[in-house]
Amino acid sequence: METRRLAIFLFLLSLCLSQSWGTQNYKKLRGRKPCKTLVLYFHDIIFNGKNAKNTTSSIIASPEGANRTILSGQDHFGDLVVFNDPITIDNNLHSEPIGRAQGIYVYDNKDVFTAWLAFSFVLNSTDYMGTINFAGADPLMNKTRDISVIGGTGDFFMTRGVATLMTDALEGEVYFRLRVDIKLYECW
Amino acid sequence: METRRLAIFLFLLSLCLSQSWGTQNYKKLRGRKPCKTLVLYFHDIIFNGKNAKNTTSSIIASPEGANRTILSGQDHFGDLVVFNDPITIDNNLHSEPIGRAQGIYVYDNKDVFTAWLAFSFVLNSTDYMGTINFAGADPLMNKTRDISVIGGTGDFFMTRGVATLMTDALEGEVYFRLRVDIKLYECW
Amino acid sequence: METRRLAIFLFLLSLCLSQSWGTQNYKKLRGRKPCKTLVLYFHDIIFNGKNAKNTTSSIIASPEGANRTILSGQDHFGDLVVFNDPITIDNNLHSEPIGRAQGIYVYDNKDVFTAWLAFSFVLNSTDYMGTINFAGADPLMNKTRDISVIGGTGDFFMTRGVATLMTDALEGEVYFRLRVDIKLYECW
Repeated sequence: METRRLAIFLFLLSLCLSQSWGTQNYKKLRGRKPCKTLVLYFHDIIFNGKNAKNTTSSIIASPEGANRTILSGQDHFGDLVVFNDPITIDNNLHSEPIGRAQGIYVYDNKDVFTAWLAFSFVLNSTDYMGTINFAGADPLMNKTRDISVIGGTGDFFMTRGVATLMTDALEGEVYFRLRVDIKLYECW
Repeated sequence: METRRLAIFLFLLSLCLSQSWGTQNYKKLRGRKPCKTLVLYFHDIIFNGKNAKNTTSSIIASPEGANRTILSGQDHFGDLVVFNDPITIDNNLHSEPIGRAQGIYVYDNKDVFTAWLAFSFVLNSTDYMGTINFAGADPLMNKTRDISVIGGTGDFFMTRGVATLMTDALEGEVYFRLRVDIKLYECW
Repeated sequence: METRRLAIFLFLLSLCLSQSWGTQNYKKLRGRKPCKTLVLYFHDIIFNGKNAKNTTSSIIASPEGANRTILSGQDHFGDLVVFNDPITIDNNLHSEPIGRAQGIYVYDNKDVFTAWLAFSFVLNSTDYMGTINFAGADPLMNKTRDISVIGGTGDFFMTRGVATLMTDALEGEVYFRLRVDIKLYECW
């Protein structure tokens, strides 16, 4: 009888101590299961000197000698684009937008298409109200590219995570559509 | 007597188990009470071709055809501005600066004033020494706009949070003053 | 006998309660010991109108009137540079690169060399596969400058930390080499 009780004491004690250890080292124990996931699309229509009406983005900087009306020949090296693109929940450009993707990307390589991005999703729908902020490198020729979710506000207060970009469509050098799989690992 | 002891055992056990659960799910339990708050102002004087001496910012990129001396007509769409603005603890431009706000903003909409920002507060005073880094969308026409605090150094080592921007003054297209309510939720 | 058992109960109870407290306040208990450190170098060769072949970066924006071929006289104020620089594990430009540093920096002061940076390390070696994202102010004339690690992917999944930049070499206005001491405090 005494032995059994002592066994329970020791069990409880070890449980408590293991938790104490767990609290101090929680970082290493954290799983990689997202606390929230979203799949969204955004649509970029680049101004090329002729299509002003429907465009959602524009080249605003480039190396000396290049013009800013059309993307440069050398894998667009040095072209910096500002964008304000509609975000949809499916891959249809004409679906009702649930928000806007706003920010910049810049092509940073002469030998292969590579870009660096920093932007925000400004969501304004019945399902989501708030912003998600992103930054990272975008090696466009890879099927999937991971960038960081560096913060959020509103429904995405203080969030962090990883977003996987996929080029879902590409029409000439005028239209492209990105699918973004957003996996949030910090939710408050 | 035995029953009472068993009850205590079970109580302790459940307490421990609930904590174990608590540790794994701590993210959901975190409060939204800031660990530090600051209210600061920064002052942006845009170069317009005539006021070089006192300016703190300059247009450095814009779409083809636009010049970079004055902000463009279409809600300044595509104008990218670099700034290095004094930060003060009250709304007086002539107060002793406690640091500098350094970074970029870019106007990203033709139909309404909207910008995207990324910048740092470099604080250098008796009260604060260190940097706070920010990024986010800034729909200027809203009374308040929330952006993310994405990191910090020095006194703001590893911090994260949310900053609320308010346009505190606007004089023509030359001077504006932003009030920033910084709420930090991660303090190390 | 009963007293001893009660003492153990109380000890266990206090232990559990103290942990409960510990869980809620863990943020204040976190140490400042990095969970991972890296020392890396990156090499920036700026296009100056004559050295096109080996360059890794280019001016793409500047105030009206300045050209984008060479850095401006006023401490390069307003020059925005896109870069795609080799990263090496030692300070030798000709060492085998383990990845590329991709992003932008912009000079933001007329009176002293100061820049603001946002970029990614895209690492692709046997030791490291993944990206690290950075942002922050870079007062170039200081021996060391701290910026934020704002996120990561792959081997650097969800990381955060502080990076200390040091100018390791500077040759005219064409080549500079930065040493980066990366200290990660959040590792998943």
